[in-house]
Amino acid sequence: MKSGESYPHHVVIIGGGFGGLYAAKSLGCAPVKVTLVDKRNFHLFQPLLYQVATGNVAAEEIAASLRATLSPYKNVHVLLDEVLDIDADERKVILSDGELSYDTLIVATGVTPHYFGHDEWSQAAVGLKTVEDAQEMRRRILFAFEAAERETDPERRRAWMTFVVIGAGSAGVELSGALGELAHETLQNDFRSIDPAEAEVLLVEAADRILPAYPPQLSAKAEAALARLGVTVWTRARVTDITGDTISVSRGDRFDRIEAHTMLWTAGIRASPMANVLARRTDANLDRLQRVIVEPDLSITRYPDIFVIGDLASFSHQRDELLPALAPVAIQQGQYVARLIRARLAGRSLPGFSYFDKGNVAVIGRNTAVVQLGRFKSEGFIAWLLWVVIHIYYLVGFDQKMLVMFRWVWNYFTRRRGARLITQC
Amino acid sequence: MKSGESYPHHVVIIGGGFGGLYAAKSLGCAPVKVTLVDKRNFHLFQPLLYQVATGNVAAEEIAASLRATLSPYKNVHVLLDEVLDIDADERKVILSDGELSYDTLIVATGVTPHYFGHDEWSQAAVGLKTVEDAQEMRRRILFAFEAAERETDPERRRAWMTFVVIGAGSAGVELSGALGELAHETLQNDFRSIDPAEAEVLLVEAADRILPAYPPQLSAKAEAALARLGVTVWTRARVTDITGDTISVSRGDRFDRIEAHTMLWTAGIRASPMANVLARRTDANLDRLQRVIVEPDLSITRYPDIFVIGDLASFSHQRDELLPALAPVAIQQGQYVARLIRARLAGRSLPGFSYFDKGNVAVIGRNTAVVQLGRFKSEGFIAWLLWVVIHIYYLVGFDQKMLVMFRWVWNYFTRRRGARLITQC
Repeated sequence: MKSGESYPHHVVIIGGGFGGLYAAKSLGCAPVKVTLVDKRNFHLFQPLLYQVATGNVAAEEIAASLRATLSPYKNVHVLLDEVLDIDADERKVILSDGELSYDTLIVATGVTPHYFGHDEWSQAAVGLKTVEDAQEMRRRILFAFEAAERETDPERRRAWMTFVVIGAGSAGVELSGALGELAHETLQNDFRSIDPAEAEVLLVEAADRILPAYPPQLSAKAEAALARLGVTVWTRARVTDITGDTISVSRGDRFDRIEAHTMLWTAGIRASPMANVLARRTDANLDRLQRVIVEPDLSITRYPDIFVIGDLASFSHQRDELLPALAPVAIQQGQYVARLIRARLAGRSLPGFSYFDKGNVAVIGRNTAVVQLGRFKSEGFIAWLLWVVIHIYYLVGFDQKMLVMFRWVWNYFTRRRGARLITQC
Repeated sequence: MKSGESYPHHVVIIGGGFGGLYAAKSLGCAPVKVTLVDKRNFHLFQPLLYQVATGNVAAEEIAASLRATLSPYKNVHVLLDEVLDIDADERKVILSDGELSYDTLIVATGVTPHYFGHDEWSQAAVGLKTVEDAQEMRRRILFAFEAAERETDPERRRAWMTFVVIGAGSAGVELSGALGELAHETLQNDFRSIDPAEAEVLLVEAADRILPAYPPQLSAKAEAALARLGVTVWTRARVTDITGDTISVSRGDRFDRIEAHTMLWTAGIRASPMANVLARRTDANLDRLQRVIVEPDLSITRYPDIFVIGDLASFSHQRDELLPALAPVAIQQGQYVARLIRARLAGRSLPGFSYFDKGNVAVIGRNTAVVQLGRFKSEGFIAWLLWVVIHIYYLVGFDQKMLVMFRWVWNYFTRRRGARLITQC
């Protein structure tokens, strides 16, 4: 394979998440030079980040070096750098450290947590998008039990042992399920002054049911499964304020103020700053989450050489429904854009992107998950097994897969969690 | 087993390293209440820290939750707290958060890196004692290759690709061997502008040979093995200055100034601050590394109820030789003190501590190690296998052992390193 230098066409990809990584892989044998720019040196398997946050696996086990993953493709270059700006007319990407000319640009920088206009809540209620977020969550969760063990005042102890998860999409459901397991199983014999099972895990959701993206029957089953793990679910519940260690929640005509040291935020997402750069430089339209509204072929209006894929893209699906911010969407979009670039170079075209929905699956705990595959719906052990298989299959890098599988099998039989480090405290 | 509350005798252990952990385990069934205080919630397998620093394993894989490890011993309590002071006459330990009365105190807080009066060097040349140290080393090492890939100026590129390891005890030898492997094997296909094999790894040692604690023949063999991995060894070499990215080294009448962005410090250790607390509170004598000079039974002069064990203790062995700062010494001392406490409670006494030297083993790279077991000396593959078996055996926690073994087998056959994350950058 050629090293890429000899090819006249240069594809620059910004972001090494699912979209960017699969675009780069799919261009791995194409007659183009590819440069993937990311400010981190690894691809992160975000769907399992909640397992880092709850001490089940190490961050290293769900991350893969971008260089190592892409090293077989000699035409693909990886650059550790931050993109500051895009000059869409000169076809240049401005880096913190120089610039890059492109012929085709793929922007796949994803999303960040969104606090609905209350950025000050981010201190108290940490989000879950980066390795550092997950490690900070893990630190707070484990430290809360440690502090409770030392605390003699019952009310303050209770605040340490109260965990509030805000947002009941799959991340929030998986996180609160894992917290329930942590309290009721993993930590059972570890403390002498407290009973970890007395921890209260509260899942707060603004919609009328948890997992709103799933069929209602599965939401109900997931809620029942969470209840068995000791998780309290509040739906139609809106966070009105977070100050210090107090969270205020309104539910219809009820209003609660809860003392809790540990609040975990999975309620909202917003486009990463690159969306604003694109809006400024290309007049691209943004949706209400600031995501870039794309054409049927995932390019930006009037800029057929700039594609936006993955969570950052706002793509109207059938019946004007927007595609969800999920890994399979990003993967398929990355592969589609790679195919389109190849087709264009060969003087051909392609029909617009269409998403093939393979279904949804969210895990609630050991043995329990909910899965929806087309018209097939399931809950319980079979769904859980499916979840395990799907996640192992998509984990990038063979050693990562084996390690995580080992951890899971081990944790499954022992109910232990091997990655319970409080670091950076 | 009783929960410990019912026992009148309270043993407080400060520090959950090898010494403290093995003391606690050995007191696990004794008729005493035990409280182990550590400011971290995990036991760290320090001998493998260099593998975290070079991206071979995750920190989580060589660390074990203190609570989980000690949970079978109902009389053992774990407390996450920092010890600020000791009141030796009132028999109290002052915590950041209250105090603890003890009947017997075991101090096992270990050592920190020592820069021989040049603490300002610690910014440029990071030490290797904590998880954070190792992650910082990993960050710097991996980032240096990334920066070299971007750098076009040959001289500045050379500075990014120069790695200086200061101190050639086993940590320094293992670290520079791993760096040699990283440059020559692991990263071989990952870059497009640089050839990682052109990296220069320089090992600087003040003594007349590397591994001064080993027999001279093994030092020579280790040096030859390092040379095969592309490591340059300078002995009788003294660091005279480190400023910014420049390190000055004097060797006899030669004097070198080396431009290097990455300097790793394994040259010296000094007692942790608890030694000074003991000196102030008990008039304990300290040696030149500030370590506490202990009696033959590891107690402090005039304070038979305070023991100092592990790296923090300065123990005169046969012919007035001091015991080295090694895990086996700390383990045996922890077990000895536990036996002595049991004996005293039963109204008996024990002869003084004596160290059973099982030998030394240091790994240089894949397939190569040096080992010295009594009069048996070996180098090469057999030594390497021995090293693997010993380290796996002592890794605390079954899942940790299996994970690390898996990583090693995998890395052995693929020459990959799966934990190459640049975090906190």
